[in-house]
Amino acid sequence: MKSLLMKSLIIVLLSVNTAFAASAVDPLPSWNDTAQKQAIITFVEKVTKEGTPNFVPPAERIVTFDNDGTLWPENPTYFPQAFTIDRIKALAPQHPEWKEQPLFKAVLEDNLETFFSAKSEERFALEGIVRAGYTTEEFAQFVKDWSVTAKHPKTGRLYKEMVYQPMIELLTYLRANGFKTFIVSGGWSDFIRPWAEEVYGIPPEQVVGSGFKTQFELRNGKPVLVFLPEINFIAEGPDKVIGINQYIGRRPIASCGNSDGDKEMLQLANSVSGAHLALLVHHTDAEREWAYDRTSRMGRLDKALDEAREKGWTVVDMKNDWKIIYAFEKKLK
Amino acid sequence: MKSLLMKSLIIVLLSVNTAFAASAVDPLPSWNDTAQKQAIITFVEKVTKEGTPNFVPPAERIVTFDNDGTLWPENPTYFPQAFTIDRIKALAPQHPEWKEQPLFKAVLEDNLETFFSAKSEERFALEGIVRAGYTTEEFAQFVKDWSVTAKHPKTGRLYKEMVYQPMIELLTYLRANGFKTFIVSGGWSDFIRPWAEEVYGIPPEQVVGSGFKTQFELRNGKPVLVFLPEINFIAEGPDKVIGINQYIGRRPIASCGNSDGDKEMLQLANSVSGAHLALLVHHTDAEREWAYDRTSRMGRLDKALDEAREKGWTVVDMKNDWKIIYAFEKKLK
Repeated sequence: MKSLLMKSLIIVLLSVNTAFAASAVDPLPSWNDTAQKQAIITFVEKVTKEGTPNFVPPAERIVTFDNDGTLWPENPTYFPQAFTIDRIKALAPQHPEWKEQPLFKAVLEDNLETFFSAKSEERFALEGIVRAGYTTEEFAQFVKDWSVTAKHPKTGRLYKEMVYQPMIELLTYLRANGFKTFIVSGGWSDFIRPWAEEVYGIPPEQVVGSGFKTQFELRNGKPVLVFLPEINFIAEGPDKVIGINQYIGRRPIASCGNSDGDKEMLQLANSVSGAHLALLVHHTDAEREWAYDRTSRMGRLDKALDEAREKGWTVVDMKNDWKIIYAFEKKLK
Repeated sequence: MKSLLMKSLIIVLLSVNTAFAASAVDPLPSWNDTAQKQAIITFVEKVTKEGTPNFVPPAERIVTFDNDGTLWPENPTYFPQAFTIDRIKALAPQHPEWKEQPLFKAVLEDNLETFFSAKSEERFALEGIVRAGYTTEEFAQFVKDWSVTAKHPKTGRLYKEMVYQPMIELLTYLRANGFKTFIVSGGWSDFIRPWAEEVYGIPPEQVVGSGFKTQFELRNGKPVLVFLPEINFIAEGPDKVIGINQYIGRRPIASCGNSDGDKEMLQLANSVSGAHLALLVHHTDAEREWAYDRTSRMGRLDKALDEAREKGWTVVDMKNDWKIIYAFEKKLK
């Protein structure tokens, strides 16, 4: 009983500590004091204030985040593609015949232009090839290994350091206010899950993403799932809303995205009758990150930007709203 | 600041209260003191004891429960089917042509024998008919309305009172010990989710189940999902393991089921190298519930029972292990 009382005392001390911290410290220190930051804080204060019409019980404080371009960059190529390109290179010695095939050749020679001009079905076929025959656990290990070794071509930093610090603060702030944070990504969930908990604090069961089919097998008496080279689901555009219903089964009261592929998910959050947040990250910072929108190959933001302006969604201007992009910038100062 | 300190004090008081309660009170009062109850408690104590080889961090304490036959009965018909039969009856006045079709006729005349002798595709077609064209939110309301009015033919009780009290205690006990409880059911998630939180304390996002396809639409400018009469996924047998990977993305350390359709899910829990729990509910109580196993039309338990005995899974003997079946029995005493 003594140890239980001790635990309780620790809980109260932690609570007091957190309570003091919450009142004293800016929850979004990497955000400049602009209308966007204020819109986030106003939303959180509204839905957490008991006894008011906008109050939302914690169980219903669901927020969904796109990943590529919203939580981490998507240039010069989507991170999941960078991983696949590296896997193809790693497997190439066992496949001399690949050198004769234009798309493989492009990958092996870092010819991204040819890679991106291929049809999406052809690029998806490569994703199938790096998965097929492996168990889900073997594949997760490849991703983990990559996440601690592969470096981003622009910064020379590990990919896992390349997450947007202001968005990490937003995730943390929302969770501290009782929100359940989900990723709903067009990227592959089998690529995101092995490191989402470490980099975002989001557990695997809160990652909805695109995925390949698997097959159940007993290997040496142990049940495993083996990847098939067939796509099961692509969580993009209206299919993000379908994925939200299928996996989460609740309507989010906040959604954050950065491209036309997030438009319907933001429409969903925007359709909530009480307080809600539909937030778009607009890539406006050519110097610290990238500047692109209506004509970009990656994360095109065109129709969703029009709708955001028409409907009054919160559009984050990366250049003006964010003090830093990555946490490592703090250490450099 | 004062109110924050007050909150902290409330937290410590609640914690002390819970701590006393946990040590004083049997967490599974509706379970007789048999080997099965002891197996559950031993498992929970092992995985929660820090600094020992069997310790599992809270984030990895995932447990999956089958629903029909494991958390609530499946006789004389599966609850999801009982709902569909009632929906067909409600819709029948608008469809005079149904009277001429043998399967509809069987449903309208409560001829369950004919209903069950139909091919599963034909029965699934009825499930499509009661969904197609409705939005997911409209359908959820039909389920909610049914859950507060429809009564079980054997007991005359609302279906939502017909949940197994010993299993509710098990769910509560596991959650109190840091487990995250999931349903992984062959039943339709759109039928389970609207009341799973109330009857089991399991939120929608922790319900994995079978489901129909949906289509995104804007209705009066509001995004909705409309059901299509096409099955998307059936979570039964090996596909339960596929569903666990797809939705949860972690290997459960405990799984509870009652039929051959749960065999692979229990194999998965049983393949964990540390402490784990693979639990089968064996329906042995013809008087208080139903007694059935190897030749039953509902929840056939044959191969999984052999494997349970061979591998030493925990087989709950409903008649001997459970003091009561439903909570309302307590009130009757």
